[in-house]
Amino acid sequence: MGNLIFNGELITRSAVKIDVEDRGYQFGDGVYEVIRIYNGQLFASEMHLKRLFESAKFIRIKVPFTLEELKAKLEALIVKDGLTFGIVYMQLTRGASSRNHAFPTEEVEPVFIAYTKEMPYAGEVKPGVKALLTDDMRWLRCNIKSLNLLGNILAKQEAVEAGCAEAVLHRDGIVTEGSSSNVSIIVDGTLKTHPANNLILNGITRRVMLQLCQANGIPVVEEAFSIADMLAADEVLYTSTGVEVTPIVSIDGKIINDGQTGPITRQLQVYFREEIERQCGRLKA
Amino acid sequence: MGNLIFNGELITRSAVKIDVEDRGYQFGDGVYEVIRIYNGQLFASEMHLKRLFESAKFIRIKVPFTLEELKAKLEALIVKDGLTFGIVYMQLTRGASSRNHAFPTEEVEPVFIAYTKEMPYAGEVKPGVKALLTDDMRWLRCNIKSLNLLGNILAKQEAVEAGCAEAVLHRDGIVTEGSSSNVSIIVDGTLKTHPANNLILNGITRRVMLQLCQANGIPVVEEAFSIADMLAADEVLYTSTGVEVTPIVSIDGKIINDGQTGPITRQLQVYFREEIERQCGRLKA
Repeated sequence: MGNLIFNGELITRSAVKIDVEDRGYQFGDGVYEVIRIYNGQLFASEMHLKRLFESAKFIRIKVPFTLEELKAKLEALIVKDGLTFGIVYMQLTRGASSRNHAFPTEEVEPVFIAYTKEMPYAGEVKPGVKALLTDDMRWLRCNIKSLNLLGNILAKQEAVEAGCAEAVLHRDGIVTEGSSSNVSIIVDGTLKTHPANNLILNGITRRVMLQLCQANGIPVVEEAFSIADMLAADEVLYTSTGVEVTPIVSIDGKIINDGQTGPITRQLQVYFREEIERQCGRLKA
Repeated sequence: MGNLIFNGELITRSAVKIDVEDRGYQFGDGVYEVIRIYNGQLFASEMHLKRLFESAKFIRIKVPFTLEELKAKLEALIVKDGLTFGIVYMQLTRGASSRNHAFPTEEVEPVFIAYTKEMPYAGEVKPGVKALLTDDMRWLRCNIKSLNLLGNILAKQEAVEAGCAEAVLHRDGIVTEGSSSNVSIIVDGTLKTHPANNLILNGITRRVMLQLCQANGIPVVEEAFSIADMLAADEVLYTSTGVEVTPIVSIDGKIINDGQTGPITRQLQVYFREEIERQCGRLKA
């Protein structure tokens, strides 16, 4: 929308100027988060903001606010933009400094930006999507939510060009995650998803879903699974801030669960909507 | 220096404004090159510019100039800046578009920037440096000279903090390259260096060096080698636009060739200086 937080100040977007030697621009030297807004309320903001601090700590960028200060700034931005349903995108880079691979030796202010975008609530039920399998070419620190996303965007683009909503990534046949989501399978009533190690981003929607499984008696196994396991699974689903809980019903043309949303995926959509309503109030859609 | 090529125009640096949604800033969705300037002349510019076009093609960004047009623009920049010894840095991103992993569906102009920096010629002889071994955590398309450099900068920073000039990267004990350089070893008079596949950037200095080896009867094997091979080698050296041909005389504290520049490395420094002079004229340093 028209406003932006730029280094702590709430200003109009046209006033923002990113330096060509911002290390975010030259090295992808920064981290980011995307938080969903329902009814003007941030969803799972503590988890997102904590992860921003963790990602920043991994690559040793100091967040120039406390978590509470940052949350208050985001809330002010949402009010200023008059946003009811959407997302807030934020990123933090190491700042601008004469180009050099090593960290700047002089004192450099990290550069923080945040802005919102409208995104309607698509409703509890999401139609099943098609996905494509592709090699996971990314680096070995996917647990950091960094700005080095070339591997992700190339995979996503490949999926889009094949008429698919998502690319499911694998390393030598072991499924890791989606290009901008986590992937889970349901086998004999148990939800299986890749463990939260260095090969995946530990998604907030993934974590909320795992909590909802636990609260509702759905068994969970955080264990890597193969492509063959996935194609033979009863249900396949993917999760992210944008898609919430959405079934995958076709992978490389192979149909999952007769192309239908499976019963556990459907149940998780109900639980997820309830969780949104618990945090952000009643949803009309 | 004070001027900059921004989307084809030669303007003052302060007039440049990078959009927060430039895909280079949010995804590292772009490629770059660094060309050395000696005596006001671009060194190995054809090879560098061709590689820029190749990198851009890999990730499907269209370079908005021909190679000849780009070269002319760079030469004009060097004249405008009055630069005699230095580098020109350039990068090209997919451009600014509402944030989305997939490529923009609307027509988007790629964003090109280039600027120069002074860097003296350090002379033919370079003192041997210390290096550090660290895991190569990068993605599997290191042959693309992309802006996704977080793995490189974290390795470089680790080296710098250990008092080393460079980090030598390895995958499971197989040496790939340096964090911003290529690494070669000399064993029984033969130069060995990692093949130019997806695990390394095929450095221009590396290629020039291989040509110089061929022209001067130094046998070359483009073959991966292990950490053990490297530590037992007669000589170890690293190459880049910045360091040209420089010996590595200590790795993780293990001394190579009694801490001295080996004879073949020394010879390559002579050849490399001659090549610079052939292309850019007499060097006084």
